[in-house]
Amino acid sequence: MIYCDYAATTPMLDEAMDIYSEINRSYFGNASSLHDFGTKANDYLRHARELIAHCFRAKSENIIFTNGGTEGNILAINTLLRSIPTKDKPHVISTMMEHSSIYYHLLSLEKENQIDVTFLEGNKEGHITIEQVIHAIKPSTKLVTIQYVNGETGVKQPIEEISALLSKKNILFHSDFVQSFGKIHTDVTQLPIDAITVSSHKIYGPKSVGAIYFRNPHVLVHHPIETNHEFGLRPGTVDVAAICAFAVSAKRIHEIAVYEHLYQVRAYFINQLKQKEIPLLPLCSKNSCPSIVGCISNEIQGDYLLLEYNRFNIAISTGSACALGQQEIPRAVLPLLDNEEDGKRYIRFSFSHLTTFEEIDTIIMVSAKIFQRLEEARLAYG
Amino acid sequence: MIYCDYAATTPMLDEAMDIYSEINRSYFGNASSLHDFGTKANDYLRHARELIAHCFRAKSENIIFTNGGTEGNILAINTLLRSIPTKDKPHVISTMMEHSSIYYHLLSLEKENQIDVTFLEGNKEGHITIEQVIHAIKPSTKLVTIQYVNGETGVKQPIEEISALLSKKNILFHSDFVQSFGKIHTDVTQLPIDAITVSSHKIYGPKSVGAIYFRNPHVLVHHPIETNHEFGLRPGTVDVAAICAFAVSAKRIHEIAVYEHLYQVRAYFINQLKQKEIPLLPLCSKNSCPSIVGCISNEIQGDYLLLEYNRFNIAISTGSACALGQQEIPRAVLPLLDNEEDGKRYIRFSFSHLTTFEEIDTIIMVSAKIFQRLEEARLAYG
Repeated sequence: MIYCDYAATTPMLDEAMDIYSEINRSYFGNASSLHDFGTKANDYLRHARELIAHCFRAKSENIIFTNGGTEGNILAINTLLRSIPTKDKPHVISTMMEHSSIYYHLLSLEKENQIDVTFLEGNKEGHITIEQVIHAIKPSTKLVTIQYVNGETGVKQPIEEISALLSKKNILFHSDFVQSFGKIHTDVTQLPIDAITVSSHKIYGPKSVGAIYFRNPHVLVHHPIETNHEFGLRPGTVDVAAICAFAVSAKRIHEIAVYEHLYQVRAYFINQLKQKEIPLLPLCSKNSCPSIVGCISNEIQGDYLLLEYNRFNIAISTGSACALGQQEIPRAVLPLLDNEEDGKRYIRFSFSHLTTFEEIDTIIMVSAKIFQRLEEARLAYG
Repeated sequence: MIYCDYAATTPMLDEAMDIYSEINRSYFGNASSLHDFGTKANDYLRHARELIAHCFRAKSENIIFTNGGTEGNILAINTLLRSIPTKDKPHVISTMMEHSSIYYHLLSLEKENQIDVTFLEGNKEGHITIEQVIHAIKPSTKLVTIQYVNGETGVKQPIEEISALLSKKNILFHSDFVQSFGKIHTDVTQLPIDAITVSSHKIYGPKSVGAIYFRNPHVLVHHPIETNHEFGLRPGTVDVAAICAFAVSAKRIHEIAVYEHLYQVRAYFINQLKQKEIPLLPLCSKNSCPSIVGCISNEIQGDYLLLEYNRFNIAISTGSACALGQQEIPRAVLPLLDNEEDGKRYIRFSFSHLTTFEEIDTIIMVSAKIFQRLEEARLAYG
């Protein structure tokens, strides 16, 4: 089976599994315990924190471990909001293209009357412009949360520009790096972002673990559930084994030239689609992250197409997991469409450093077969 | 090293590790995906849900998987509160002895003016009486959350009586079963509790996973973060590998006569403490769960005593993880004390089905040695 759904989740690296297994069998103690089982677990935890910090060019004290991308996004936003001494209701700027954990969390905070929120809409390339951000800023704006790479489309937002602007204006900036981490290198010494969320299972680590980089951890206020874990920012027993497996994956993946390979794979895929006249229109631009190629098919609905590819042992996605036949159009895809209905024919191929050119050849061959059959069926049944 | 901190966390079973590894390598797909990687993961997830349901004598539909005990407790309380159509501020009854995830969550909801809360205090045996619960009920009381077995002391609360009372009065009842699960069998057909929280890493499964049993899942309102996961009750990618490992551990542990073994281990331990005149006073009653034996030492502070045991390769706990020399007295221990200061000399031994009588002999021998040295030091330095 050819797996092209790496943006959804990835298989675990052997090295990550080995450390997970070793810790859970031999160094399984609670990292807060004072006995040797605890202190050994704590040694592992400290080392993992250094490894993850290194991936950001940050210090250990800037990293807190979470339960994954969703918890990370919510925790980062809540923690930054709690750190702002404000009498008035804070205004938050975000985008329509954010991951549901951010989009719905902000909607729910707004409903509870805790914040005002402005969701920016992407232009025809799915981009947020710096002018849009400037225009949306109010005196009460305290936080901006805009993702780096979108998980449905691969569109990259101009976070360098945005972070430079917000830093000058003293507005906090959070960014969801779940899709870019391990593909595009991050150097926080060059990027004034206040919080960054990443997830382990997108980079060949275990599920249920992730991290937040906090630029200034010392000003952060403790979590309402009194806890000694993760500098008081998060309750729940620290999963040292999963954290170390995550750190090992992150280290490994940062040693590989992932981006260059993805760039070539995408170019080859798009070129082959065109050459073989496959009726799939790629929506990605040169500026988007090459791990994701979203396509609009000429006529068949995305989830049925997904099942066709699956019959030929190729795993792809529609960008949203719904009941069959009830495909919703992902919010992030909408700006890229001339016609909203086209979005129901959206499918997503997502690649990794494991994707080979031979796999692309097979995908192209299968695609040709699928669309030829569909064309034959159309001609036969009118 | 002899591990006597099973109430804090446990080593993972080999069977649990095997399934975790197999799924994360071969069936790692997102369980919501429509392709084969997803549907296979979903098959595993369904089977795991059946196994956990079976441990409660419940149906699969009653089980939702969580990130662990802390998230489970908070999610259960929030979900039950959301399910109550009420105009007035709901009143919640709990106890001073609850796990910090419940105690501080309720305090924080009260601070946000979302609930009124009454925390009941335990009597000299640490028990909440049915009369106390009756006395605390107001017309606005909508939810009671009282744990089954306390993690610091092993004290068992009369949840059979409490659940029968609340069921008649139409007041929702949640109970934290994290410490009893896998030790005391649960049969929800005989126990009208609306929600029960359990955790995997207390029963030889991985960390970062747990479950909630909901008696009536159909009346529950979706989580504010729109999600298809876990019947809409919890966001975040479902960790199928960890869930299956948890389910395998739960199945295995429910096949063993854990309670009977623990009962004998505790009796032998307490008997030996007395026979060998070790100056450690056990605080447990016959009615408490035999997995935990809390003791007050005659003079030395708990955390220093913990380090002494650690020097002799025995891992115990003080019941709270704080900086050395700043031991706090766990809330749950307070009712059991004649004198509050005694609580600083509290240590906790927690046993499992893996604990042997030979280990108890070693612990007794080491205890005799530690206290003899302390006595000698006291005599020498006055």
